[in-house]
Amino acid sequence: MPRVLHQLKVDLGDRSYPIIIGQGLLGTSDLSSYVAGSQVMIVTNETIAPLYLERAKECFPGKTVDSVVLPDGERYKNWEVLNLIFDALLEKRHTRKTTLVALGGGVVGDMTGFAAACYQRGVPFIQIPTTLLSQVDSSVGGKTGINHPLGKNMIGAFHQPEAVLIDTDSLLTLPPREVSAGIAEVIKYGLIRDVDFLAWLEGNIDGLVDRQPEVLAEAIYRSCVCKAEVVALDEREGGLRAILNLGHTFGHAIETFAGYGNWLHGEAVGTGMIMAADLSEREGMINAEQLETVRALILRAGLPALPPQNMTPEDFLNLMAVDKKNVDGQLRLVLLQAVGNAVVTSKAASGNLDATLTHFCQRQ
Amino acid sequence: MPRVLHQLKVDLGDRSYPIIIGQGLLGTSDLSSYVAGSQVMIVTNETIAPLYLERAKECFPGKTVDSVVLPDGERYKNWEVLNLIFDALLEKRHTRKTTLVALGGGVVGDMTGFAAACYQRGVPFIQIPTTLLSQVDSSVGGKTGINHPLGKNMIGAFHQPEAVLIDTDSLLTLPPREVSAGIAEVIKYGLIRDVDFLAWLEGNIDGLVDRQPEVLAEAIYRSCVCKAEVVALDEREGGLRAILNLGHTFGHAIETFAGYGNWLHGEAVGTGMIMAADLSEREGMINAEQLETVRALILRAGLPALPPQNMTPEDFLNLMAVDKKNVDGQLRLVLLQAVGNAVVTSKAASGNLDATLTHFCQRQ
Repeated sequence: MPRVLHQLKVDLGDRSYPIIIGQGLLGTSDLSSYVAGSQVMIVTNETIAPLYLERAKECFPGKTVDSVVLPDGERYKNWEVLNLIFDALLEKRHTRKTTLVALGGGVVGDMTGFAAACYQRGVPFIQIPTTLLSQVDSSVGGKTGINHPLGKNMIGAFHQPEAVLIDTDSLLTLPPREVSAGIAEVIKYGLIRDVDFLAWLEGNIDGLVDRQPEVLAEAIYRSCVCKAEVVALDEREGGLRAILNLGHTFGHAIETFAGYGNWLHGEAVGTGMIMAADLSEREGMINAEQLETVRALILRAGLPALPPQNMTPEDFLNLMAVDKKNVDGQLRLVLLQAVGNAVVTSKAASGNLDATLTHFCQRQ
Repeated sequence: MPRVLHQLKVDLGDRSYPIIIGQGLLGTSDLSSYVAGSQVMIVTNETIAPLYLERAKECFPGKTVDSVVLPDGERYKNWEVLNLIFDALLEKRHTRKTTLVALGGGVVGDMTGFAAACYQRGVPFIQIPTTLLSQVDSSVGGKTGINHPLGKNMIGAFHQPEAVLIDTDSLLTLPPREVSAGIAEVIKYGLIRDVDFLAWLEGNIDGLVDRQPEVLAEAIYRSCVCKAEVVALDEREGGLRAILNLGHTFGHAIETFAGYGNWLHGEAVGTGMIMAADLSEREGMINAEQLETVRALILRAGLPALPPQNMTPEDFLNLMAVDKKNVDGQLRLVLLQAVGNAVVTSKAASGNLDATLTHFCQRQ
């Protein structure tokens, strides 16, 4: 029986939109009120299409619904595959009043959102994220984009959806590795600004790993609330929002080194958060016990705690230097002032950074 | 001796920017106050680079200035060539605080603006348009984008520049055909909402064709003022702004039919405006004498008055149907209520449209 468990509004003035979280929503919810025109183009991938495409189509009664199925994987988050969306839109003669729908994980969401941002200079889109990571990450923030061979997410746009529909049932078909990757981002929200949520997580991490529906819905809701608060305060990522990148500078370096798609984004962020906590400890911002708390929680989520075996400190430094978190050449990092309080700083002593990189690359 | 002849402000709230028009400005103006960071990437093409790149670099004292040179032509307004800009930015490690500079015509401007809209989800850019068309058209409006094999400008973004610098000297190296193509857009501003400017043009069209500097500067200024007024009233092209597309629906069909780059955009718009005037006359909105006024002015500017020889009414209808000016399948056209007053309508009788297409395709 379908039931809406949580609903929240992402408050962005005239670009505000709802996030609807529940069980059994796909195929039973009516999203047509979020579609201004008569045309809908559902973008999904070949893994998700056989599972959920038909049910997704039923969410748009009275509309002309077309679909395009992309190959599945981070390595397809590129221009050539993005262009399949434009091809489909133009071949089906979708006008500038069309609405795109992203049905899938973060890659589908990022690409569909970017296609919507660019098609005829901008059309609306709706998100139906089907992975835990995309439910707690890409559903809030309006970040869209594709990768470039020289860097992740280097080409993109800020583009807000009309609505986000999250069906926790879609997580039942998700591989366990991807559940863990999603939990990495959930833990992140606790670490950066919600010590109560972190305490709740320490008590419920096993329920999350086991995919208990109410635990999932609660974790997704609290994560979205946390991210929505941060994004509402800083929509264009000028300041505060950068704390959402906890673990991401190290993580992006790991992903790029490993080759897109070999490490899951959330796995790299999990390891990256331990590295950021390690550096925070060397900087005297948190103590050894707090560092261990972070590490233990990430390990309990089933996430890796060390970078790829053959990765060196030099690899990290080279790959972190092109990361977009840099401003005019200064390496800015998100560190933990406390467990539950992240800060952005460009003041970390390079000796401490070197020590962290050496420590993790020596696999101690 | 450098002299600023006109200056205007495009009023878009916190995205307002100046357009500076004059002689001898390239190489003598200091634009560094419009650059927030330390990095500048000048994007130009292989025709313009030997003429103006060094002088453009001198406009950014104290900044790190890199450049990327694209092949020249509308047929290169595609993703592969756009990617050369991203390659250059990433290879030179430009951060999200970089500023892009478009030095060239409309293609360079559209591509550089779109690259700026997408690089790391948006960086600032400055326009230095070097063709008459781009000076009077692309410098105002924030439209950026690239072509898709199935349609012109189908992929793009709205992105406003920090400033526009127009040096009329750069028109002295422009081929006469391109001068005429630019004059087509100048005439358009008179036709759509400025009957006084149209009268001025009838007295000064030969001076424009002869590239007299003061005449050029005046025509550019008045064109930019007209477009800026329209854009300020309707930044995202919801309503009024559509009148700027006078001649463009027919024109885009001609350009697409001929293959990008074989007809200049302004040439196609020139013919398209005569066709729009013809249809307006058939609709009883203007009289035969006014139609002849339009036709005569466009011919005096050295522009073609007929579509490609082998183009049929069916070609027009097919190509106009995917034009982005359509809303939910209805063909919207910009017609002349009077000379100096354009309107957008989807009410033109299809019989009259057919008659216009047949008339022009039979080359009468």
